[in-house]
Amino acid sequence: MIDIAVIGTGRIGSHHVSALAEDVPAARVVAVVDPAIDRARALAEAHDIPHALPSLDQALDLDALDAVVIATPLPTHRPLIEQAAAAGLHVFTEKPVAATLAEARAAVEAAEAAGVVFQVGFNRRFAEPWAAAHAAVSAGEIGAIHRLHSLTRDPGPFTADPARIPEGTIVRETLIHDFDVISWFMGEARPVAVHTAADALVAPAARAAGFLDTAVVTIRLDSGAIATAEASFSAVYGYDLRGEVFGAGGMVQMGSPVSSGARHYGSEGLRARTAGTDTERFHDSYVAEFSAFCSAIEGEEIADRPTGADGLAAQVLADAALLSHAEGREVLVEELAR
Amino acid sequence: MIDIAVIGTGRIGSHHVSALAEDVPAARVVAVVDPAIDRARALAEAHDIPHALPSLDQALDLDALDAVVIATPLPTHRPLIEQAAAAGLHVFTEKPVAATLAEARAAVEAAEAAGVVFQVGFNRRFAEPWAAAHAAVSAGEIGAIHRLHSLTRDPGPFTADPARIPEGTIVRETLIHDFDVISWFMGEARPVAVHTAADALVAPAARAAGFLDTAVVTIRLDSGAIATAEASFSAVYGYDLRGEVFGAGGMVQMGSPVSSGARHYGSEGLRARTAGTDTERFHDSYVAEFSAFCSAIEGEEIADRPTGADGLAAQVLADAALLSHAEGREVLVEELAR
Amino acid sequence: MIDIAVIGTGRIGSHHVSALAEDVPAARVVAVVDPAIDRARALAEAHDIPHALPSLDQALDLDALDAVVIATPLPTHRPLIEQAAAAGLHVFTEKPVAATLAEARAAVEAAEAAGVVFQVGFNRRFAEPWAAAHAAVSAGEIGAIHRLHSLTRDPGPFTADPARIPEGTIVRETLIHDFDVISWFMGEARPVAVHTAADALVAPAARAAGFLDTAVVTIRLDSGAIATAEASFSAVYGYDLRGEVFGAGGMVQMGSPVSSGARHYGSEGLRARTAGTDTERFHDSYVAEFSAFCSAIEGEEIADRPTGADGLAAQVLADAALLSHAEGREVLVEELAR
Amino acid sequence: MIDIAVIGTGRIGSHHVSALAEDVPAARVVAVVDPAIDRARALAEAHDIPHALPSLDQALDLDALDAVVIATPLPTHRPLIEQAAAAGLHVFTEKPVAATLAEARAAVEAAEAAGVVFQVGFNRRFAEPWAAAHAAVSAGEIGAIHRLHSLTRDPGPFTADPARIPEGTIVRETLIHDFDVISWFMGEARPVAVHTAADALVAPAARAAGFLDTAVVTIRLDSGAIATAEASFSAVYGYDLRGEVFGAGGMVQMGSPVSSGARHYGSEGLRARTAGTDTERFHDSYVAEFSAFCSAIEGEEIADRPTGADGLAAQVLADAALLSHAEGREVLVEELAR
Repeated sequence: MIDIAVIGTGRIGSHHVSALAEDVPAARVVAVVDPAIDRARALAEAHDIPHALPSLDQALDLDALDAVVIATPLPTHRPLIEQAAAAGLHVFTEKPVAATLAEARAAVEAAEAAGVVFQVGFNRRFAEPWAAAHAAVSAGEIGAIHRLHSLTRDPGPFTADPARIPEGTIVRETLIHDFDVISWFMGEARPVAVHTAADALVAPAARAAGFLDTAVVTIRLDSGAIATAEASFSAVYGYDLRGEVFGAGGMVQMGSPVSSGARHYGSEGLRARTAGTDTERFHDSYVAEFSAFCSAIEGEEIADRPTGADGLAAQVLADAALLSHAEGREVLVEELAR
Repeated sequence: MIDIAVIGTGRIGSHHVSALAEDVPAARVVAVVDPAIDRARALAEAHDIPHALPSLDQALDLDALDAVVIATPLPTHRPLIEQAAAAGLHVFTEKPVAATLAEARAAVEAAEAAGVVFQVGFNRRFAEPWAAAHAAVSAGEIGAIHRLHSLTRDPGPFTADPARIPEGTIVRETLIHDFDVISWFMGEARPVAVHTAADALVAPAARAAGFLDTAVVTIRLDSGAIATAEASFSAVYGYDLRGEVFGAGGMVQMGSPVSSGARHYGSEGLRARTAGTDTERFHDSYVAEFSAFCSAIEGEEIADRPTGADGLAAQVLADAALLSHAEGREVLVEELAR
Repeated sequence: MIDIAVIGTGRIGSHHVSALAEDVPAARVVAVVDPAIDRARALAEAHDIPHALPSLDQALDLDALDAVVIATPLPTHRPLIEQAAAAGLHVFTEKPVAATLAEARAAVEAAEAAGVVFQVGFNRRFAEPWAAAHAAVSAGEIGAIHRLHSLTRDPGPFTADPARIPEGTIVRETLIHDFDVISWFMGEARPVAVHTAADALVAPAARAAGFLDTAVVTIRLDSGAIATAEASFSAVYGYDLRGEVFGAGGMVQMGSPVSSGARHYGSEGLRARTAGTDTERFHDSYVAEFSAFCSAIEGEEIADRPTGADGLAAQVLADAALLSHAEGREVLVEELAR
Repeated sequence: MIDIAVIGTGRIGSHHVSALAEDVPAARVVAVVDPAIDRARALAEAHDIPHALPSLDQALDLDALDAVVIATPLPTHRPLIEQAAAAGLHVFTEKPVAATLAEARAAVEAAEAAGVVFQVGFNRRFAEPWAAAHAAVSAGEIGAIHRLHSLTRDPGPFTADPARIPEGTIVRETLIHDFDVISWFMGEARPVAVHTAADALVAPAARAAGFLDTAVVTIRLDSGAIATAEASFSAVYGYDLRGEVFGAGGMVQMGSPVSSGARHYGSEGLRARTAGTDTERFHDSYVAEFSAFCSAIEGEEIADRPTGADGLAAQVLADAALLSHAEGREVLVEELAR
């Protein structure tokens, strides 16, 4: 049994507390940590969790804490990772690893230095369609890869205030998943160059302020393969994650916006439900990534577990994509090398 | 080039004139025949057809007539088949062969005696999904057949006057296609017993008059396989033909109500068009059955061409199904033997 | 928290122990009960369950037991239900309720007399496609129901010894799910007549001994609607549960043999995985039915929870279907009335 | 009836002769033109076409010629268009209009000056899924467009000799269809910038010679919308044309590699056929484009008929895409202005 403190009780943090407490047999949530202590307490009570604490400091005083799950705002990732690692705790962090590439590198190094298990929240690797497709591609089923495509569209309509969303969020926090999918499928191949086309189309009034809600990123790999990643903040038909990998010997596709196994036929034709959010549609993949995290802590080798290196690889692509957008040109990945 | 007179200019006859004149290179329509001579003339004119005639008698006077295509009301089938066959013309007749099993037997015998090519309008055999599925089943892909299911739903809403529809039409004219599909897929196996559940559900007010608009027929075959055929006069989502054949080694499915290759996603979910009538959705299969008819006349062996024997096999099942309904019991096919 | 003893540690009992212990937050498994005490102990140990006991008698001595989940061979259902109900325990029993209709009626009466919550394991009601389709039909989306079809095919190839399978199992234990689906969707309509076509096609050598592995049952309802239920013991492509409900205003379909969200394309065409067993493919529905059971015990009204009356309704159809098969005739449901 | 000379008897020319002669009632093919006169004669004979001629010169001597259909190698397009237009003939040319943008502009101007009907072979506009999707988008069903994606994969395995394929063919002759789809769906919006990632992945040995067989082109439009077009010379699963248009109010998708309406299920899972070439899979769209051409000649307004302006718009994108590849940078469309 792995004793875990979950830090952060926002939308995704609340989901993670519930998923870990109710659906991951190998995990025991012993503390919910958030300076918004009332929210932490309510969540702890709802799931019979012994402690609700305002900060990681207090959690470190608990006996028998094994690991933390970080689901806090991005600027806090690095200090929390470093603090937890320094205390010998295993670390699961929501993506991306940290607010900047430099901070991410420092955080990953801290975890490595501490010798703890480190995992990044690239849950798409644990979703059945992606895992099955990856197994097929790894087994050589489609031969040499020529094309990869990965897509993320958040459910709409978009109602947030663009002014409250940090610049580059669609690249740093949304496309980061697609960058990881591409890296994961590509195996040994390395990205060489990145080109971005991005704009504010969902919220065009925010364009002048630099807001981006729609993006297409093209990545050339040293194998010759060409990858594309695309995202939108507003799919009115619901959460839409898809991927396609095409090679010399065939193609695999994964994902569909359709969210129900019931099909309806009426005078308007066929209809099928597509609505749903990430935590509704991909709950199983979150549970699976936490199970993998626990297994890794227990010493098991988990083949496709996203490590610090994976987190950095995706973050390099995010930085390259944002640089490409800023400078209106194709960017070489080596420009991002330290 | 096969010179053909098309007899009958109703909905399906008009379609056949057009299909033969425009889309079957091997066929030349030389006459449109209908006592409603104005309709025949209009159709002939629209398709540059030389003759519009009130009856088959006049058509027989034409030089160089090779064949007739019969698309007239059911009671006229037998005399027309016999007259054409006696004149040495090849005969294509819409299903069923004739109004009664006895008449159908007489008509098929007349065609056989005359040595002409005889074909029944079981166009579903020529629809790509059915042909592909049949090829797979014939090749042994699913092993021994355990179950067959064939379904026909006419596009709704149903607006006809039930009083003007002959009793048993859903069995004799609609399910006849499904009976042929079942016989065709079963190959050597013979039907043994038939059970019908049928009712007036679309037009319940007509139930007292014996009208039927919804039917499920179960057929036991001597191989042990169990077949079901079902039909409805009113699918509000459009024409719906489907089939499923299940065996020891797998399953094939054919058909779908979806009629468009475009998929729409909106706040209501996925939508795809399903509307369409038989002549819209299955035009290609009509063209293919006429091409097969022409090829057979030119001496080619056409493996799956529905012959007189096929027409009778389906009509025996129709009679058995109606007898089962009338007497509320399972009927043995041998009861229908002469 | 509902304290539960699970009785029976066969394939489905083991699954239920795991599902209840790990995935149903409202439930606590306090005892695993089986005369095969080693199996009970292993299972208890694997899931941190305090007690492994040889019989319900010992379980009744435990403090704080709220309910039993019965997953034992069919002949033991009635005595266990009666014993548990007499002790004031709530009862969840795998389907069917009991070995005979008379026993089932006695068991349901015992539970009613004791005033305990009683639920039958018709988990298909809790599978997302079926629940969504039922909601649509209940909301009137397809208007008056004309046709219902429900299908169950167990994953093959079939390797069991037919001699060890009780006669009529495909009807009593497999089609019972389909009978419940039909009853559930039909709402107020009552079954009137039942016709069965069944045979030994998977294991034809066992035909002489009365074994059945393939069945199609046609049910006429007093609304006029016609239902069909079909089953096979051996689908080589994996577990296959499907349903279709067709009415005056449209159609809903539920289920698919496809078990993966990844699609593969190669020189052989499109491929998608279909393999899987009930507990793999429908695990979520088992968890949901147990959650509903716990909620009902806690006093909540659960609209579609399958009650004793539902269990009896399905079992009446099973008896009618077997009688139809035995006597080779359509059977009236009223023949089964007490 | 439109009297047509078809020029060119290669793979696509032969198809067009057959399609026009057999399947387009409004057209009459009066001459097949090819310096390979034996091939022209064989084709003419097969379809009862009166004339087989070595060059357009001879065809111009025929009485009553209304139009030409050009399906010759690209360098001959411009002179043939100009000669036909000068003779007052309507012109249908396979895509692209001409070998270079300058030549294409000259050819289109010649046709305009002559006042003849001019049409480019962008048959995808006439394929049912694309036409249906375009109608939905034009009707505002998905609101403002944010993203367009169009894909063309030729059936593989690729067996041609790269040395015999002109440089840039995948852009000029394959992606030209996708460029037209994008332009057509975008309506009033104009392309602003183009970025290409392309490589020789199917035939990597030809990379050094500048051969390209895989390409992804990103196009920014002045509406803000971002389009991508991609192509490959070798899809081992068969011809694959697809598209997706995403907007503020939803999404439409068109096309699928699946080429059969039969689905097969076996121990390996679901299978469906995908093989097929353009002329097999998209025959109906060729027939429809020729029918539209004939209707336009007869004076009808055909809304989505691809005109000379459409041909030039696509060719500008092709030139921009090739320039982007050559110079390794994003290219502004205005750079291609004359």
